[in-house]
Amino acid sequence: MRNTVDLNSDLGESFGAYTIGMDDEVIKLVSSANIACGFHASDPVVMKKTVERAVAAGIGIGAHPGFYDLMGFGRRNMNISPAEAYAYVTYQLGALSAFCRQQGAKIDHVKPHGALYNMAGKDYELAKGICRAIYDFEPNLILLGLSGSQMINAGRDMGLLCANEFFADRAYEDDGSLRSRTKEGAMIEDENEAIERVVKVVKTGYVTTYSGKELKLRIDSICVHGDNAHALEFVRTIRERLTDEGIEIAPLRRVVGNA
Amino acid sequence: MRNTVDLNSDLGESFGAYTIGMDDEVIKLVSSANIACGFHASDPVVMKKTVERAVAAGIGIGAHPGFYDLMGFGRRNMNISPAEAYAYVTYQLGALSAFCRQQGAKIDHVKPHGALYNMAGKDYELAKGICRAIYDFEPNLILLGLSGSQMINAGRDMGLLCANEFFADRAYEDDGSLRSRTKEGAMIEDENEAIERVVKVVKTGYVTTYSGKELKLRIDSICVHGDNAHALEFVRTIRERLTDEGIEIAPLRRVVGNA
Amino acid sequence: MRNTVDLNSDLGESFGAYTIGMDDEVIKLVSSANIACGFHASDPVVMKKTVERAVAAGIGIGAHPGFYDLMGFGRRNMNISPAEAYAYVTYQLGALSAFCRQQGAKIDHVKPHGALYNMAGKDYELAKGICRAIYDFEPNLILLGLSGSQMINAGRDMGLLCANEFFADRAYEDDGSLRSRTKEGAMIEDENEAIERVVKVVKTGYVTTYSGKELKLRIDSICVHGDNAHALEFVRTIRERLTDEGIEIAPLRRVVGNA
Amino acid sequence: MRNTVDLNSDLGESFGAYTIGMDDEVIKLVSSANIACGFHASDPVVMKKTVERAVAAGIGIGAHPGFYDLMGFGRRNMNISPAEAYAYVTYQLGALSAFCRQQGAKIDHVKPHGALYNMAGKDYELAKGICRAIYDFEPNLILLGLSGSQMINAGRDMGLLCANEFFADRAYEDDGSLRSRTKEGAMIEDENEAIERVVKVVKTGYVTTYSGKELKLRIDSICVHGDNAHALEFVRTIRERLTDEGIEIAPLRRVVGNA
Repeated sequence: MRNTVDLNSDLGESFGAYTIGMDDEVIKLVSSANIACGFHASDPVVMKKTVERAVAAGIGIGAHPGFYDLMGFGRRNMNISPAEAYAYVTYQLGALSAFCRQQGAKIDHVKPHGALYNMAGKDYELAKGICRAIYDFEPNLILLGLSGSQMINAGRDMGLLCANEFFADRAYEDDGSLRSRTKEGAMIEDENEAIERVVKVVKTGYVTTYSGKELKLRIDSICVHGDNAHALEFVRTIRERLTDEGIEIAPLRRVVGNA
Repeated sequence: MRNTVDLNSDLGESFGAYTIGMDDEVIKLVSSANIACGFHASDPVVMKKTVERAVAAGIGIGAHPGFYDLMGFGRRNMNISPAEAYAYVTYQLGALSAFCRQQGAKIDHVKPHGALYNMAGKDYELAKGICRAIYDFEPNLILLGLSGSQMINAGRDMGLLCANEFFADRAYEDDGSLRSRTKEGAMIEDENEAIERVVKVVKTGYVTTYSGKELKLRIDSICVHGDNAHALEFVRTIRERLTDEGIEIAPLRRVVGNA
Repeated sequence: MRNTVDLNSDLGESFGAYTIGMDDEVIKLVSSANIACGFHASDPVVMKKTVERAVAAGIGIGAHPGFYDLMGFGRRNMNISPAEAYAYVTYQLGALSAFCRQQGAKIDHVKPHGALYNMAGKDYELAKGICRAIYDFEPNLILLGLSGSQMINAGRDMGLLCANEFFADRAYEDDGSLRSRTKEGAMIEDENEAIERVVKVVKTGYVTTYSGKELKLRIDSICVHGDNAHALEFVRTIRERLTDEGIEIAPLRRVVGNA
Repeated sequence: MRNTVDLNSDLGESFGAYTIGMDDEVIKLVSSANIACGFHASDPVVMKKTVERAVAAGIGIGAHPGFYDLMGFGRRNMNISPAEAYAYVTYQLGALSAFCRQQGAKIDHVKPHGALYNMAGKDYELAKGICRAIYDFEPNLILLGLSGSQMINAGRDMGLLCANEFFADRAYEDDGSLRSRTKEGAMIEDENEAIERVVKVVKTGYVTTYSGKELKLRIDSICVHGDNAHALEFVRTIRERLTDEGIEIAPLRRVVGNA
């Protein structure tokens, strides 16, 4: 089905004296970075350094705008209007793009962070606020979102290039939504199973849902983490397995795009 | 000596539910706006609206980056490194430029705000951090600073186009520095006197210093305020007097620049 | 029914260089102040000054804890846990109580602010987090909330003294809840009608609901505003009318309490 | 000279999703904790947990108020007025005291943090703002500061009980001030030497200055760190050596105070 896929990971989430994530390690393993923009995490000094690292590693650069909630790491739902979402995403996009521009680099994609990602995945109007900000800033940017979500719908309607993300460790319902974490079986606990699901969905375009059905799913990118040694090992294994299957890991622009 | 001069004013300093400044009024009277970028004042929603206003008014747009000190309105000295200044200015510049870009506009100049302006006026290394951030972002931007300051020196050394600012209500020392506010006679209390000083410095290129000497001063822009009805009246009078003298009020780019 | 009632107003919502509210005027007209605690509004310097004003005016002092969302003035719903609510309310209560203690004063009541007030009014668990924080800090504090809300329920269950608040400009449903702002007739537009509703509910303990029924409602305090000259005039009229009816305006502690 | 001394360490500096410091380990080794209050570090949830830990460990509790500069961890000088210092310290003291009160505990001491500590050590007026806030809040609190500093002077003049702190890894000048980090020999690099200096100053009341003189120094507390495994090992060794010398490690209140 596919012979290329992107591996994306959140990067640059440290803040001031606080360090989080094993950026130096995970950056070697992924093809795209979602770089925090100073709202839910990061600060200008960290952003500069993170863009430098991504440029040096030659991976795709994505903006990772989130809620203005550093204390909650952008993981708490906040009731903002589409107009506020527009302005907040624009602000963060612009800030990150300045560091890129200084280094002769460009933002390739935008992936909303945490609770903003989740809320916009279900709320078309909120998603439209986000997508319009992206489009008005640069129509050629790629929106990275959950396959089948309202965010992807809004991005498509806006004319953005959209990339669909797969979560290796989450069960899917028959309609393509993620099985709620409050329900039994929401998480794929077995790592081998998780990895084989990734390989299968990339190779065949199908995932086995919680109910046992085979669901067709277009996948452009796999979301991975670099929080600890264990997570890094998981990413290494996914890379190896995909490579063994003849699938190339490539930045998002090459996977979905017009570069 | 001159037949054009710029009038600049701080704009877009409201924040969330808090309104400050008579932006709607002062914007009709000036040729350039220094727009707050969310650190010492403003927020993304205010920034979007302020850029819209400036674009509609057809005036020059400037970034007004400040210290990350909303509680102190960026007016308190903070001991940041040149590297931090570089990153903070980049972040704010990028954020504002995104709103401009969405509206087909461009930033013309950068004027550091408040305590950052004052500190960089005396500290060459700090000023260099700021100026390098501006240059690396866009070498064609104009730096607006106090005539004769270390900031202007750093900007010139960096290859930035520099614009010199005059303060109508402040006394000058023989070396071109502002007379310290802690000293007697630092402020020009009489409004007529203040206005005539402006007219004179623009027309002749000379200001009478506190000691009574005639000092040659290159002036490209006059700093004015829109905080209250009285300040607005003052701006109106300056405009009239300058116009009466055959001096045109024009955006910074036309006064100093290569547009 | 009653011969005393409290008038409460939000106070001390200025922040740094930003001024909001006509505190000096409204403080003469009310019997209790809800003082912002630095999360949704205010800062330590403003809090000190506001406590000084309230002490000088001899009115009751209340803490007005809100969401940590200065940009949204605490008016946007945020999905925080009861444990977070406990900690946030404790922090704000403690901060305000320190200024009171320095001035030989005491906090009398706590009224959650804005979106926190609204959310806790409908969510018993969230309300319990808030009320437990208050109780653990000082069991003698009065909780000021919407009559019939989950917050009042939680406060009562916790053993807190509870005071019921009436909104002069809002229509009530038959079950005692406020008619949703999204529905027609939610607001009492006519000022005279609003004032007569206040007088009636205080004197008789009954309010006419939107559907026309007479609903029994225990009311201890009327919420008023000091945002502008018009709002102040409204408060003056309420005071006069209540006084004319022989009802005394008194701090919350005297109305509900054990002082 | 002495048979008791306090070991103090900064605690509770984590923030939201960010963890810093090995609090669980260092808390077993020290007799007093300086607990961050949400300005330079920490948040209300972390503060609650940290007070719980300190109470469980039975160690002395101190407030560690700092600059409102989370991005700089309170380590950057900020030019605040004594009145602002008063308000900021009061706010933070009150917030921490609320968590203590909920748990039946009390604050024993106050140690300003980072740049505020350093600035107030040299600026009597700033120090007075801080000390007056402490005194007005609770005159029985202990001020922990650098021996011989302006902060200790201000504390003494205010009537506060003062505790003098010794830095094991810093060289002292003949006048009792710390040798500036910009000068050669400012740091005691050799760990054994550092430990022996601690033992000597506690036992004899004398420290050998950089110039080689024997300086009399009253020391009540030793500042130690729990940032990493190495720092913890250092604290363990200090404890052992002091205990071997018959010196008891005791909370500040027992060392200096009236408990």
